[in-house]
Amino acid sequence: MKIEPVKGTRDFYPELMQEIKTIFNSWSSICKKYGYEEMDGPLLEPVQLWQLKSGTEIPEQMYTLTDKSKRKLAIRPELTPTLARMVAEKQKSLTKPIKWFSIPRCYRYEQPQSGRLREFFQLNVDCLGNDDTYSDAEVIAISIDIMLKLGFTNKDFYVRISDRTLLNIILEQLGVKDTKDIFRLIDKKLKITQKEFDTELKKLTKKTKPIKEFLELDNIKSLKKFVKENKISVDSSDLEQLFKYLDNYGYKKYIKFDPTITRGFDYYTKTVFEVFDKSLKYRAIAGGGRYDNLVEDFGGEKISGVGFGMGDVVLSLFMKDKKLMPEYKRDYDYYVTIIPEKDDNTKLKEFAIKVAQKLREKGKVFLELNTRKLNKALAFASRNSIPNVVIIGKTEMQNNSFIVKEMQKKKEKTIKL
Amino acid sequence: MKIEPVKGTRDFYPELMQEIKTIFNSWSSICKKYGYEEMDGPLLEPVQLWQLKSGTEIPEQMYTLTDKSKRKLAIRPELTPTLARMVAEKQKSLTKPIKWFSIPRCYRYEQPQSGRLREFFQLNVDCLGNDDTYSDAEVIAISIDIMLKLGFTNKDFYVRISDRTLLNIILEQLGVKDTKDIFRLIDKKLKITQKEFDTELKKLTKKTKPIKEFLELDNIKSLKKFVKENKISVDSSDLEQLFKYLDNYGYKKYIKFDPTITRGFDYYTKTVFEVFDKSLKYRAIAGGGRYDNLVEDFGGEKISGVGFGMGDVVLSLFMKDKKLMPEYKRDYDYYVTIIPEKDDNTKLKEFAIKVAQKLREKGKVFLELNTRKLNKALAFASRNSIPNVVIIGKTEMQNNSFIVKEMQKKKEKTIKL
Repeated sequence: MKIEPVKGTRDFYPELMQEIKTIFNSWSSICKKYGYEEMDGPLLEPVQLWQLKSGTEIPEQMYTLTDKSKRKLAIRPELTPTLARMVAEKQKSLTKPIKWFSIPRCYRYEQPQSGRLREFFQLNVDCLGNDDTYSDAEVIAISIDIMLKLGFTNKDFYVRISDRTLLNIILEQLGVKDTKDIFRLIDKKLKITQKEFDTELKKLTKKTKPIKEFLELDNIKSLKKFVKENKISVDSSDLEQLFKYLDNYGYKKYIKFDPTITRGFDYYTKTVFEVFDKSLKYRAIAGGGRYDNLVEDFGGEKISGVGFGMGDVVLSLFMKDKKLMPEYKRDYDYYVTIIPEKDDNTKLKEFAIKVAQKLREKGKVFLELNTRKLNKALAFASRNSIPNVVIIGKTEMQNNSFIVKEMQKKKEKTIKL
Repeated sequence: MKIEPVKGTRDFYPELMQEIKTIFNSWSSICKKYGYEEMDGPLLEPVQLWQLKSGTEIPEQMYTLTDKSKRKLAIRPELTPTLARMVAEKQKSLTKPIKWFSIPRCYRYEQPQSGRLREFFQLNVDCLGNDDTYSDAEVIAISIDIMLKLGFTNKDFYVRISDRTLLNIILEQLGVKDTKDIFRLIDKKLKITQKEFDTELKKLTKKTKPIKEFLELDNIKSLKKFVKENKISVDSSDLEQLFKYLDNYGYKKYIKFDPTITRGFDYYTKTVFEVFDKSLKYRAIAGGGRYDNLVEDFGGEKISGVGFGMGDVVLSLFMKDKKLMPEYKRDYDYYVTIIPEKDDNTKLKEFAIKVAQKLREKGKVFLELNTRKLNKALAFASRNSIPNVVIIGKTEMQNNSFIVKEMQKKKEKTIKL
C-alpha cells in the first residue's frame, strides 16, 4: 500500500538532512560562542499557551488535538510561550541573566509555498533578566554572526532595526491618536502599493506628509534631524547606544535604522529588528526584539527579555541562491570491500570485519561485502569523494594484510593488520 | 496565568538538555563511525502508516488529529513505517545497501512511569538491501559500540540474540501447532511467575518438558546438542555465523543466545535481539531484528532490512544508576565582567564588548555586564568550573587591556587587547 506524506512536510533523505544539519551546526556553534545554553520544551502543550499572547494568526494556524483525558493540546507553532512558561516555573532558581537557545520543530497550518512550509525548524535565541541595551546588541550580533558563519557578506544581507517605544512617541506627537492601526499599516507597507498605503494612511491621520517623511528615514542622524525639525520631544539615546554597541562588535556595516520595522504588535515592547536579504526577494530571514512582560503573563514575576527567531526554510533558499549550501557528500573515510572468490566468501568477510573494526579507530568506515564488482565500488567511491577504498582479496587475507587505495593520489599500498 | 505542561512530557532545561545531548552525541558518533547516514521523516503522517504493520498496541497509543482538510493524521509513535515509505518512494535511485540512522522524537499515549514517558526520543539504525548475516552482525555491533561509548562494560549489559525462523522450526518439530500463541507466551515469560507460565504452556502443548528445556538454553553449543538429542532437523548455521561475525568484531563477551527473545511478532522475520542490563532491573534498552517484507508492504519492491531502536528514557536511567551521566557543567571558556564605576558605565561596557568579541576568536564567552558584585561573579565561575574570568575596570580600559583570572591555577594576568 502506497501512502502519501502530508503536504507541507519534508522527507529528510540524507542529502536534505546534510543541508539542515549545516544550518543547525552553524546556529548552535554561534550561540555557544556567546555562552548561550541549549534547551527545549515539549512538542505538545495545552492550546491555552498560544491563545494567551501569540496574537490572532498563530492560534488559527495550530494543529490541535484532544487527548484521551479530553485535554485540548496543540503541536507547538512557536517556542516563545513554552520558554516563558519554563522561566516562570523555575524563576527563583535560575541564575540571571538567562541565555538560552533552542532549535524546535514547529507546525503551522499555512498554505505551502516557496519559503513557507507547514513543518519547519526555528532557531530561538533569548536573553532574559537584563534590561540593558547591550543585551539587545548581543542577540542582534548573534544573528549577524550566524549569517557570516553561513558565508553571507554585507553585500547579501542587513539587519533593519527600530524601537517601538520611540516610534510610538513620534507617531503620537505627529498627531496619530491610535498607533495600533498605523503600526499594522506600516507592517504591510512592503506588501501593498504606494497608492494603497497613501489611501489607508489618510484614513488614519491628516498629517500624512511628516509621517511619510519619517518612514523614509534610514539612519540615526536623519532621525535626530527630523525630530528636531518637527519639534518632537523624544529621547533616542537607547537606540543610539544600541548602534554604538553594535559598532563595538565590528558590525556597523550590517545594520540600518528602519522605522518601517514594527513586528508582532502584541508582543514586543521596545527594540525590534529583522534580518533581510538586501534584494528583498525573500520574507524576513530572522526577526525579534525586546519583550518585557511575557514571563509575567505566564504566572511568573516580571522579568525582561530580548530575543529572536530564525527559520530554516527561507534561510535555506537564500543560501542556495547565493551558492552557499555545501554539496552533498558521503562522510566516509574508508570504503571496505572484498574481491569475492567463486566459492564461499565467509572467511574473507570475517577478515574484512576485523580490518574494518581496526580502521574505525582512525575514522568512519563503510563496509560493503556483497559480491559487487570492484570497478563499481571504485566508481562509487570516486563519485562520492570517499578518500580511501580498502580492498581485501584471498592473498591479502592469507598475508593478514589489506590494500588501501588512496583515491585522490591514485596510490595503492598494502598494510599489515 | 499559570499553565501546566502535558503529563509524560519533559521540560528540557539546560541541565536535562546536556544529558540528552550526551546520549544523542554518542548515538550519532557511533553510527557515523559505521558509515550510517542521518535521515529523518515528518513528525506528522497519515494514521494509516501505523495501522498497516505496527501491530495492535501502537495504533491504540497514537496521538491523532484531523487537519483542516479532514485528513486523519498521527504524531509518529515510531519511525520504521516512515522509513519504509521513504525507501519505497525512491527505491530505484537509492544506492544499496542503504545504511541510515535517525533520532526521531516520538509520542505514545502510555501510562507514564519509571522508564516510560509519553514523549521520548528513539535512535533508529537500519541497513536495507543486504540479506547477508554480516549486516545483522553490523547493527548488533553498533548497539554494543554505543553502550561502550557511553561507558558501560560487559559487567553492565549484554545482547540477547535469537532467530525467529529457527525458533519456529524447533517449536513446530516439538509438536506446537500454532507458534504464534507460544511466541506471545514466551515474550511474557519474564513478566509472569513460573507457575503461570507452566499453566499457560500446558494449554498450548503436551510436550512441555522439552520446550521448557529448550527455553533454558543459553549458548549455541547446548542448542546444537539439544537439537541432536531431540532429533530436530534444523539448520542453525546462520545463527552460528552471526556469533562468529560478532566474535570478529571483538564482541563475543557481550552476546548470548537466548531463545526467550521473540519480539514484535508481526514484524521481524529472522534475527531478533535485545540489549539488556545484566541485573534485568529495566525494560530492554534496545531491540531489533531482521524484517524482510516491510518496504514491500508500503508499495515498494521487496528489499530486506535489519535494524534496531534504542530509546533515551531507560538508557538515561541506566546511565545514572551506573554513575555514567556526566555532571552538568556550563560550557564557557571565558566569563567577562566589569568593575562598575559609580557613574555611567557605558564606555566600560563598550570596551568589554570589544574584549569579549576578541576572545570569541579563541573560545566560548559569556558576557555579563550588569552591576553584579565581583565576588559573586567569581563564586559563580568557580561553582560552574568556568576556567577563566575576565575582569575589566576603568584602569584596564584606559590601558586598552583586561585581566584574565585563571580559576584553577588561581593566577591573574593582564593582557593588552
